[in-house]
Amino acid sequence: MSTLGENWTLQSPLQDVPQAVNTRLHQYFVDSHEEFSYINPLVSQAITVLSDFVTSGGKRVRPTFAWAGVKAGLEAGGHTPSASPGAPSTADNTLTADSALTAISSLEFIQACALIHDDIIDKSDTRRGHPTAHRTFERQHSSDGWLGDSAHYGISQAILIGDLALAWADDMFTTSGIGAEALRRSLGPWRAMRTEVISGQMLDIALEANGSEFVEDSMDVITYKTASYTVARPLHIGASIAGAPDELITRLRRIGHDIGVAFQLRDDQLGVFGDPDVTGKPSGDDLRSGKRTTLINFALEQATPEQERTLRAHLGTIPAGDAGEDSVNALRQIIHDTGAASRVESLIDQHSSRAIELINTASLSDELTQELSRFARTLTHRTF
Amino acid sequence: MSTLGENWTLQSPLQDVPQAVNTRLHQYFVDSHEEFSYINPLVSQAITVLSDFVTSGGKRVRPTFAWAGVKAGLEAGGHTPSASPGAPSTADNTLTADSALTAISSLEFIQACALIHDDIIDKSDTRRGHPTAHRTFERQHSSDGWLGDSAHYGISQAILIGDLALAWADDMFTTSGIGAEALRRSLGPWRAMRTEVISGQMLDIALEANGSEFVEDSMDVITYKTASYTVARPLHIGASIAGAPDELITRLRRIGHDIGVAFQLRDDQLGVFGDPDVTGKPSGDDLRSGKRTTLINFALEQATPEQERTLRAHLGTIPAGDAGEDSVNALRQIIHDTGAASRVESLIDQHSSRAIELINTASLSDELTQELSRFARTLTHRTF
Repeated sequence: MSTLGENWTLQSPLQDVPQAVNTRLHQYFVDSHEEFSYINPLVSQAITVLSDFVTSGGKRVRPTFAWAGVKAGLEAGGHTPSASPGAPSTADNTLTADSALTAISSLEFIQACALIHDDIIDKSDTRRGHPTAHRTFERQHSSDGWLGDSAHYGISQAILIGDLALAWADDMFTTSGIGAEALRRSLGPWRAMRTEVISGQMLDIALEANGSEFVEDSMDVITYKTASYTVARPLHIGASIAGAPDELITRLRRIGHDIGVAFQLRDDQLGVFGDPDVTGKPSGDDLRSGKRTTLINFALEQATPEQERTLRAHLGTIPAGDAGEDSVNALRQIIHDTGAASRVESLIDQHSSRAIELINTASLSDELTQELSRFARTLTHRTF
Repeated sequence: MSTLGENWTLQSPLQDVPQAVNTRLHQYFVDSHEEFSYINPLVSQAITVLSDFVTSGGKRVRPTFAWAGVKAGLEAGGHTPSASPGAPSTADNTLTADSALTAISSLEFIQACALIHDDIIDKSDTRRGHPTAHRTFERQHSSDGWLGDSAHYGISQAILIGDLALAWADDMFTTSGIGAEALRRSLGPWRAMRTEVISGQMLDIALEANGSEFVEDSMDVITYKTASYTVARPLHIGASIAGAPDELITRLRRIGHDIGVAFQLRDDQLGVFGDPDVTGKPSGDDLRSGKRTTLINFALEQATPEQERTLRAHLGTIPAGDAGEDSVNALRQIIHDTGAASRVESLIDQHSSRAIELINTASLSDELTQELSRFARTLTHRTF
């Protein structure tokens, strides 16, 4: 893979991560295709659904934070030999830009599994403007005139291709070449991240099913499914790869939690107040689905009996398209009037400001401080 | 975990593997429960479905073969430092019985994911006499009077709990403590095994959908979904952990392929001719499902036009229970008359004999030779 990483150095800026990760993922598919070409061609064909999915875009948020963690760890003079007394100083202790890039790119395979399986669970038809994986397999089955139920076939292959993505995430990470010590250090947060994101999703659907409207519950989902998985653990993994001191890791995890919470609460706001022309989703998407987000749970908590009646009457029962616009606007007004929207906005501000403050006082280089602050602001103040 | 492994040594016999693996898996759940207790209690509750599934039995075939690989590798004087010139000789090169046991136990988590996801794909209601994972979640949802569709909820949580099992397989393996060199050596077969079993299952359902009746195709499924995953790669992984020489690894993989093929062809025979009182499955299970196994594909290949018409008329359309017994018996007779049954029986003999011969001439200790031969015979000559 090294030929493609020629221009990638341990100083490369965060904004260059998405392109570098794309190249690296593409190369991983080329290599894996060759490595496993001995298996039946029907399998290679199915794997193209995964490669199309993984390489078709996405903001590469997780690798970008992981890269910020690597850079922060290196700046803090990390990447020293392990603390075990008398441990030999071997070539293992030299982190290469190439291996670090491969390690952080693997996060996109976890994301692929998460999205492919979530799309089955949410019965979603499209993702990033393309058919979801289970719908793609379903269409192939149907257009080839294959035997059996096309929809069930689509779900079945999508479960398996998601499993493959999860297995390949571990493969790409553990064989990235980051060295035995770096691997040992980073396996802790790597393990925690995977358990937390799967647990967060299990919790999300369990709470939807048991009808919870507790803010504590929706905040738990935010913590594990988003904040930990998307920001805190990627920063933690990157910093561990680079051998960052514990104090910096603790700080980066706090920064990550705050950015992640603000990021998801922004999502809650956009799910109610977002402009469909900008978000690409129907207006009031969360109102139409009736999902109990933190924003909605705040509104239900603060509503007058009459406001609560109106909220309950419409949440999840709004007609599709323009016919539902009046209901969407009525609920938006109530959520505004209860103070829930401004409460969420102030939580976003609180978390973002605290994150920026912790970044500014982390003794990072000016360059990394600016890069990380800018990226945090982009994610928490976005309108898309 | 070490206190539970006190009596486990690098000389422990294959027959002791299942009990030791059960203890180790149980301990893993206890430790993980504690480690992740900070996540919402609803998640811990869901994880008990996985722990019940993993610790409720199974023959522990894969860890047993992996253990045979470890013992064979150690006998061959394996477990030497890596070939890289000048590599330091560190404590890393001492394999402990405890860490090796943890590493091979992790194979049961892969098996848990495979079975839980296969049961969704096959729409199975029971497994080992208990409700399948998706049915368990469905029942909980329904009996708690939760919101939404119970069946879809069951499938959704079972997808996620299978994902967790797959992630934990990697966690348990990579943090088993087998040492950096042993880990590096065994990650190759570990990666291949996971890709092969998932690919084998993808191939299986793709072939069922496209209606393939080619023996080559059904043999490909046997190779990847069973032979490689169940025998060849576990032997390979165990031997790599122990640092076996390449020549021995090549031989063990051949042995594993032969045992695995014979094992699955025995399954084909039992799926048609097995006694339901012994197998625990309906008589002629594969005839009722219409699955194109190698046995059925041989029969279709060799059948006279009239026999073929009868086969096609009944395969997959046999009424349940006693009403179907006449059809089952008629198809059994045809499969016998075409020579397919004796062809499969002779393939089983051929593969088993070759495996036994390769075991006998592998320069293993008398004890391991006998243990491995006995285990191979149990699996390929079984009636259950």
